[in-house]
Amino acid sequence: MNPIVSIIMGSTSDLPVMEAAAKFLDDQKIPFEMNALSAHRTPEKVEEFATGAQTRGIKVIIAAAGMAAHLPGVIASMTTLPVIGVPIKASLDGMDALLAIVQMPPGIPVATVGINGALNAAILAAEMLALSDEAIHEKMVAFKENLKKKIVKANEELTDIKFNYKVD
Amino acid sequence: MNPIVSIIMGSTSDLPVMEAAAKFLDDQKIPFEMNALSAHRTPEKVEEFATGAQTRGIKVIIAAAGMAAHLPGVIASMTTLPVIGVPIKASLDGMDALLAIVQMPPGIPVATVGINGALNAAILAAEMLALSDEAIHEKMVAFKENLKKKIVKANEELTDIKFNYKVD
Amino acid sequence: MNPIVSIIMGSTSDLPVMEAAAKFLDDQKIPFEMNALSAHRTPEKVEEFATGAQTRGIKVIIAAAGMAAHLPGVIASMTTLPVIGVPIKASLDGMDALLAIVQMPPGIPVATVGINGALNAAILAAEMLALSDEAIHEKMVAFKENLKKKIVKANEELTDIKFNYKVD
Amino acid sequence: MNPIVSIIMGSTSDLPVMEAAAKFLDDQKIPFEMNALSAHRTPEKVEEFATGAQTRGIKVIIAAAGMAAHLPGVIASMTTLPVIGVPIKASLDGMDALLAIVQMPPGIPVATVGINGALNAAILAAEMLALSDEAIHEKMVAFKENLKKKIVKANEELTDIKFNYKVD
Amino acid sequence: MNPIVSIIMGSTSDLPVMEAAAKFLDDQKIPFEMNALSAHRTPEKVEEFATGAQTRGIKVIIAAAGMAAHLPGVIASMTTLPVIGVPIKASLDGMDALLAIVQMPPGIPVATVGINGALNAAILAAEMLALSDEAIHEKMVAFKENLKKKIVKANEELTDIKFNYKVD
Amino acid sequence: MNPIVSIIMGSTSDLPVMEAAAKFLDDQKIPFEMNALSAHRTPEKVEEFATGAQTRGIKVIIAAAGMAAHLPGVIASMTTLPVIGVPIKASLDGMDALLAIVQMPPGIPVATVGINGALNAAILAAEMLALSDEAIHEKMVAFKENLKKKIVKANEELTDIKFNYKVD
Amino acid sequence: MNPIVSIIMGSTSDLPVMEAAAKFLDDQKIPFEMNALSAHRTPEKVEEFATGAQTRGIKVIIAAAGMAAHLPGVIASMTTLPVIGVPIKASLDGMDALLAIVQMPPGIPVATVGINGALNAAILAAEMLALSDEAIHEKMVAFKENLKKKIVKANEELTDIKFNYKVD
Amino acid sequence: MNPIVSIIMGSTSDLPVMEAAAKFLDDQKIPFEMNALSAHRTPEKVEEFATGAQTRGIKVIIAAAGMAAHLPGVIASMTTLPVIGVPIKASLDGMDALLAIVQMPPGIPVATVGINGALNAAILAAEMLALSDEAIHEKMVAFKENLKKKIVKANEELTDIKFNYKVD
Repeated sequence: MNPIVSIIMGSTSDLPVMEAAAKFLDDQKIPFEMNALSAHRTPEKVEEFATGAQTRGIKVIIAAAGMAAHLPGVIASMTTLPVIGVPIKASLDGMDALLAIVQMPPGIPVATVGINGALNAAILAAEMLALSDEAIHEKMVAFKENLKKKIVKANEELTDIKFNYKVD
Repeated sequence: MNPIVSIIMGSTSDLPVMEAAAKFLDDQKIPFEMNALSAHRTPEKVEEFATGAQTRGIKVIIAAAGMAAHLPGVIASMTTLPVIGVPIKASLDGMDALLAIVQMPPGIPVATVGINGALNAAILAAEMLALSDEAIHEKMVAFKENLKKKIVKANEELTDIKFNYKVD
Repeated sequence: MNPIVSIIMGSTSDLPVMEAAAKFLDDQKIPFEMNALSAHRTPEKVEEFATGAQTRGIKVIIAAAGMAAHLPGVIASMTTLPVIGVPIKASLDGMDALLAIVQMPPGIPVATVGINGALNAAILAAEMLALSDEAIHEKMVAFKENLKKKIVKANEELTDIKFNYKVD
Repeated sequence: MNPIVSIIMGSTSDLPVMEAAAKFLDDQKIPFEMNALSAHRTPEKVEEFATGAQTRGIKVIIAAAGMAAHLPGVIASMTTLPVIGVPIKASLDGMDALLAIVQMPPGIPVATVGINGALNAAILAAEMLALSDEAIHEKMVAFKENLKKKIVKANEELTDIKFNYKVD
Repeated sequence: MNPIVSIIMGSTSDLPVMEAAAKFLDDQKIPFEMNALSAHRTPEKVEEFATGAQTRGIKVIIAAAGMAAHLPGVIASMTTLPVIGVPIKASLDGMDALLAIVQMPPGIPVATVGINGALNAAILAAEMLALSDEAIHEKMVAFKENLKKKIVKANEELTDIKFNYKVD
Repeated sequence: MNPIVSIIMGSTSDLPVMEAAAKFLDDQKIPFEMNALSAHRTPEKVEEFATGAQTRGIKVIIAAAGMAAHLPGVIASMTTLPVIGVPIKASLDGMDALLAIVQMPPGIPVATVGINGALNAAILAAEMLALSDEAIHEKMVAFKENLKKKIVKANEELTDIKFNYKVD
Repeated sequence: MNPIVSIIMGSTSDLPVMEAAAKFLDDQKIPFEMNALSAHRTPEKVEEFATGAQTRGIKVIIAAAGMAAHLPGVIASMTTLPVIGVPIKASLDGMDALLAIVQMPPGIPVATVGINGALNAAILAAEMLALSDEAIHEKMVAFKENLKKKIVKANEELTDIKFNYKVD
Repeated sequence: MNPIVSIIMGSTSDLPVMEAAAKFLDDQKIPFEMNALSAHRTPEKVEEFATGAQTRGIKVIIAAAGMAAHLPGVIASMTTLPVIGVPIKASLDGMDALLAIVQMPPGIPVATVGINGALNAAILAAEMLALSDEAIHEKMVAFKENLKKKIVKANEELTDIKFNYKVD
């Protein structure tokens, strides 16, 4: 199957963070691709990537970058596909990347998730795809239900393990 | 037509900012609704809203809030629809709202735009809808083209007006 | 005895921090319970918890959360019991959690303590209970007296150990 | 009736902000007093105030201060009554006051509300009093219900006024 | 004469700030041009500008932008000419623009000046040109000398006007 | 009388803030001088000033500057007289000036006061002088006593004016 | 000899940082004392300390504290001796302590040094004492000269060690 | 060959960071020198260095410093050579150094690069030199081309290694 989500990151050093996005999409059987292209070091490659993405069948782009993180915004400026930005924590606790991604000028939005929020970026991509893909929609409903169960189970275990804290 | 985008804000005082989102959707003939519901003051109403949105035909939710801005995250926790968060500048230059919206825990993303970024939230909603709606897609391409023309025109005017700065 | 203080945290990963609160309440023989429920991943459980707390005999709620820490505020919106918020340091040095907890909108206060301030949250809960419970009040007076003695004793030890710094 | 809540502020310049607390307590018929005493300029007066408050019948103290806001913490160090701290925005957008109030060392909590959060401080005080005063408890339930109604009504008005934004 | 310095800004709204740069270059008789091109709204125009600048005889580029200020970095990625970045104060006191400009990844520097530092950007451009242009070098020496004189003169006037503060 | 305190500021634009320091010293009859010299624009003048200050009878230097506020540190590096630094709010709410003054490297301290804290700088200078000048010491005791009285009086007035807030 | 400098810290956990101050004073043969007293946990001890310091012969007080660092300001409010504040890095990189110490209200200055700046606090104390003690003054001149020599020597060593970077 | 770039740092502890600048210049065969001189501890040495640099043939100065980083600005105040400032991360994540370097007053620019951005400082210096040195210009073009190739190659390797993430 052709990829419909494209994960792009500014540097291969962002890979350990972005693997969580890849894993989620893989788990949900959503076809995706993953590339490292720098807005600053390979601008023509980025342009080629961004302008050609829709034609290649890509529906959502997840772009991750750290520091003066321009990659998500640069890609967003060259496509009408929704672009999800992931600020990578590389300096200043990730605050520089967050501001450089989220504070886009009027006209060119980037859908920003939290610092190092790779998993949430992938979930958001799936939610967008679910708008017109019933199979993915059902997976998202199941995913959310599962999330709930995990917490409830964790709470039950907490109760057991920490019983000694209960005052009788 | 039934609304497919729902704009919700934490307080009617957010209205002057959020009108830019309404105006954009109106211009693009994308049917929408607009409500003020507080995550903290009307929690049941918010729950009713969030859990019922999809059934009513809503496809994308734009949620705006200031200060400890919980509304977008609370709604995102109750639906699998994509939720776009708009941090409203009400205190601390909007930094509190930005962090309270974007730094969501793993599992529940909010697609955050810039502080007071109402227009970008609406564009982002349209980009998501365009994934499965060719008419909206064409509008977005035209919108982006138009944006470019405005800047180019502004630059031309700049050249004329500021000619006196040109050294011969 | 039924619990009168309820400690609730957004994730079991907050447990190492929150144990200090449990320990203090245990030491003071104030009956309490401890649960992990996520505002975002288990919203109905949180609602059930918050709306039922008072009926179950809970008098004060201590709610801890990190990042976009909505749990304390969400609970506060569903009860008239005093809610004490503990910002957990999970990202950005805890500044995101602090702002997401303390900057509540008019009408729904959260009594916020310092970042990772679990012990202080428990003391604050005890101070509230002491308003109408003479036994707890006496414990708090003793606790405060004891705190003083520890510092005075630490200072005396400091004087002895560091005597070599004294210039004669 | 003797006051049971004491509002204290570091400077009379904090009065315009703190009036919201006074107004709320007055509306709820909760007897209170209001004073201006500086932790730095009148330390003995502050000590006299803090150590004598409980004996005079005070149950909750609301302390407001700006900049290096020591007043709430200093008072908290001299009493076992719960102390609610209100950071006043006087410089640095109130961030200095917020940190100087909320980041208390282990042992001496201050229940901190948002920057300029005078109303929330008063509500929090009422919630504490409501733990042992059924009349106040009922008022708080009514207050919360009323808050909800106002938002719902505001939303209804919003719908009417902004009808022109609805796309048919 | 052909321009050797090119001032480019992300939006015509940056013009009031950037005029100080234009004025300085005009005063020093350094030929320059001034354009408004958005990294996000006119990416192809920016690319055309950046890749063609050197051929057209441009030696230094001054690029100004606010918010998620990508323009300076995007241009720097497409040329080996030195690029001077001016963070424009449009939101968050200009901190977002500063970080989005200065925190460039290894390999693509932007010579960043202070927030709204248009004059300093122009002086820095002149200093770079002075490395191989003796006439500009002499102008810079004279400019610096003049700067000194103004301060010394201002100090003398200060002494006169404020004589009443001198205690005899 | 020869000046024993020297107020120096980076720019005459700092004068409105620094007048509070001049006024205090004048009130206390402490002889002083006031100059504007820029660390960056008149470095030789600053050096001449700093290295000659002690010989001219100066005992304490108050140095004020905004933005990248180097003046206090530069002077401190050239004298063994105590240097008091006043961060001037000119950008970023004065945070840049505060950090650029207070975060001095080991070996060269600057006694930093709050942002725009001109009055406190003058009081601090007087406290230092009071160590060896009994007349100034007595003035400082009186000043502090007076400060207290003003607050107590303000509080009394507060009580009268705001009587309507007292619930009977 | 009786101590003339008093080092006081909010907690014995501040000792590792404050030892640099003790060491400097010891090296310079300036008699000092060192105590741990908490503004919040031992307020009466702090008051006793602050109001009695001058009578006991103390001339300068160095007060260190972390988090909501009230100790320096509280002491400054109870004496006319100069108080030097040392912000201790315990949370938020020390920014909370810095703001809680430096942003004192008009009338009560604290001479603040950098975060963890214990050595600089001691040097500053010595500079104040040097105003009326020729022996200390000479030591400070020698100290400063020595500081210079160390840097010059370090630079010479740098030149030797790093010779391989020199391009011939 | 005589050095044409001069690297100067405030402390030898900055050396591990600044080696990246030295390495780049060495690789490009651009003659340089490297010194450690403190703006605060060796002000006369710094003055001697800054005022004599141009005569000795230096064309660009790279100045690195941490904390209240005055070195770049102090040097810039004493020469018309372009000065590149490198904020060293020593405290507060390097934010203090960044602000103390970049926020220079009008008239005295410092070309600031990112926190610990030693490599970028050296590249920027080379770009300035390339304006009048064709050999260096060619090296910079080659360097940039090489940078691109590395990223493209890294991306290709990424594709191979991470093939398992590709959904078929």
